[in-house]
Amino acid sequence: MSSSVYSDGAAYVRGQFVPIAEATLPVTDWGFTRSDVVYDVVHVFDGCFFRLQDHLDRFELAMAKRRLRPPEDRTTIEAILHRCVALSGLSDSYVAMVASRGKPKVTGSRRPVDCENHLIAYAVPWVDVVPKDVQERGAHIWIASNPRVPDASVDPTVKNYQWNDLTSGLLEAHDAGFDTTVLCDAEGFLTEGPGFNVFVVKDGRVVTPDRGSLHGITRQTVLDLCAELGIEALVAPIHRSMLDEADEVFLTSTAGGVIPGARIGHRILGNDRPGPISLRLKQAYWSKHEESGHRTPVRPLEAEAAE
Amino acid sequence: MSSSVYSDGAAYVRGQFVPIAEATLPVTDWGFTRSDVVYDVVHVFDGCFFRLQDHLDRFELAMAKRRLRPPEDRTTIEAILHRCVALSGLSDSYVAMVASRGKPKVTGSRRPVDCENHLIAYAVPWVDVVPKDVQERGAHIWIASNPRVPDASVDPTVKNYQWNDLTSGLLEAHDAGFDTTVLCDAEGFLTEGPGFNVFVVKDGRVVTPDRGSLHGITRQTVLDLCAELGIEALVAPIHRSMLDEADEVFLTSTAGGVIPGARIGHRILGNDRPGPISLRLKQAYWSKHEESGHRTPVRPLEAEAAE
Repeated sequence: MSSSVYSDGAAYVRGQFVPIAEATLPVTDWGFTRSDVVYDVVHVFDGCFFRLQDHLDRFELAMAKRRLRPPEDRTTIEAILHRCVALSGLSDSYVAMVASRGKPKVTGSRRPVDCENHLIAYAVPWVDVVPKDVQERGAHIWIASNPRVPDASVDPTVKNYQWNDLTSGLLEAHDAGFDTTVLCDAEGFLTEGPGFNVFVVKDGRVVTPDRGSLHGITRQTVLDLCAELGIEALVAPIHRSMLDEADEVFLTSTAGGVIPGARIGHRILGNDRPGPISLRLKQAYWSKHEESGHRTPVRPLEAEAAE
Repeated sequence: MSSSVYSDGAAYVRGQFVPIAEATLPVTDWGFTRSDVVYDVVHVFDGCFFRLQDHLDRFELAMAKRRLRPPEDRTTIEAILHRCVALSGLSDSYVAMVASRGKPKVTGSRRPVDCENHLIAYAVPWVDVVPKDVQERGAHIWIASNPRVPDASVDPTVKNYQWNDLTSGLLEAHDAGFDTTVLCDAEGFLTEGPGFNVFVVKDGRVVTPDRGSLHGITRQTVLDLCAELGIEALVAPIHRSMLDEADEVFLTSTAGGVIPGARIGHRILGNDRPGPISLRLKQAYWSKHEESGHRTPVRPLEAEAAE
């Protein structure tokens, strides 16, 4: 029985599996003091990883772009993720993999190359990016007054923890009584929000920003679904002025799937409720989880031991 | 005797004083996963804090701007810093104070306001931002190809850990055989480097950028020193093209003081050695440390106990 000590979650740190409450990093780790970290999050749903290989692909690419090389190879990382979930005993889980710069092996060095990179992984109970009741009602989405950090300064396709601009927008959103926020870039083009991509629906056509955004796996799943369902979809610039004309807005995230919006800024969309295309895609998204193509069953602890 | 267990440094985490090796934070702390943190660093030199009140002022302002409210008030924070240094037994120390968002008290919440903010502090052996031998020879400073994150996205006067753009520049600099890097903004105006401000000297006049930069305490000390020494100094825009005409370039940081440059990009300054005004300011800076005005002696452990 995987039981009590891991029931709040299981983690892998410093080469060991530990209960999530014991998973820590030093306050002097550059992953903290320089936010010199890349990460990814995969969803375990009903005992299966969803699109695990896609998440591992993106994680590997992010590590390569930031020259982070923890000792564990891809096969090992995959096995670690399986084991974290198995130890936790969770059938619905938010599973994170993190590569940190670590600390210099040479005392006093300030060179990234001198650091001992390391891997952190953990499985915790499933968390939605937007609470379930808000998803049902349709999210109220604030348009942040501060611009998103530009792609030229920090590559948004490398999933990172540098959320200050997103947090600024979120604080504003909550002050104004909204659920969450989306940010535009300095030229007024829509980018993304804290932990999700954004889509705009106009005249039956679905559009998501071509800039300032993570290449979200759920974003890609939605683009794939649109093709299957015969909905025209494209990746293109979206100026914030287009939000005044939008029929629907929805958000996509591993941590929540397809999340319909009901309001964007001070504008009420449709009937102040999730729109029809958003709902259709939300339903299709969860049906996709049932199909075998993207599912990887979590290996039980016994199988791990026997390998 | 403050001795062995603290000799690598002493820290304050979760309300307790611990050896630096035991100072950690949870991998799920938003201070890590969203880099939702502000910090400051003060120098203890020869048993005395240098400009401690200025660092505490800046730290308090940064916390207020990010709405971070750890339970400890200013007087308590100050006492904690004293105790960290006293426990470490270090007479030269790099002393950090960090305010982190922490974790939500409400399970599953993604609202910053729901988090339990907390204070981290530590004193470790003194570390120079640029090694001493490089400071003597004059730093070789790379001009990064990626732009600094703009002020409108992330306020550079709020000292933060979001170093990705700085780290990108640093990786490039090391690839090219340089010691460190400075970044320009998207319009080509000079900003700062990883952990320091930058000054340019031209025709006996000293200039430091008016944008994209921390309001460094050492930067301010240098501006004060210029006034005392009768050197004309100003805070103004510096376009990167001005670097082609510069007589000298130097860097300023709590972690190193005044650090002369010998090369900027592919340009060799003067005799490929620290220039005369840089050296004069460097000397004046360290002399300033001897004066009583900015010095706060570290309270010994006995005094703490007796209070």
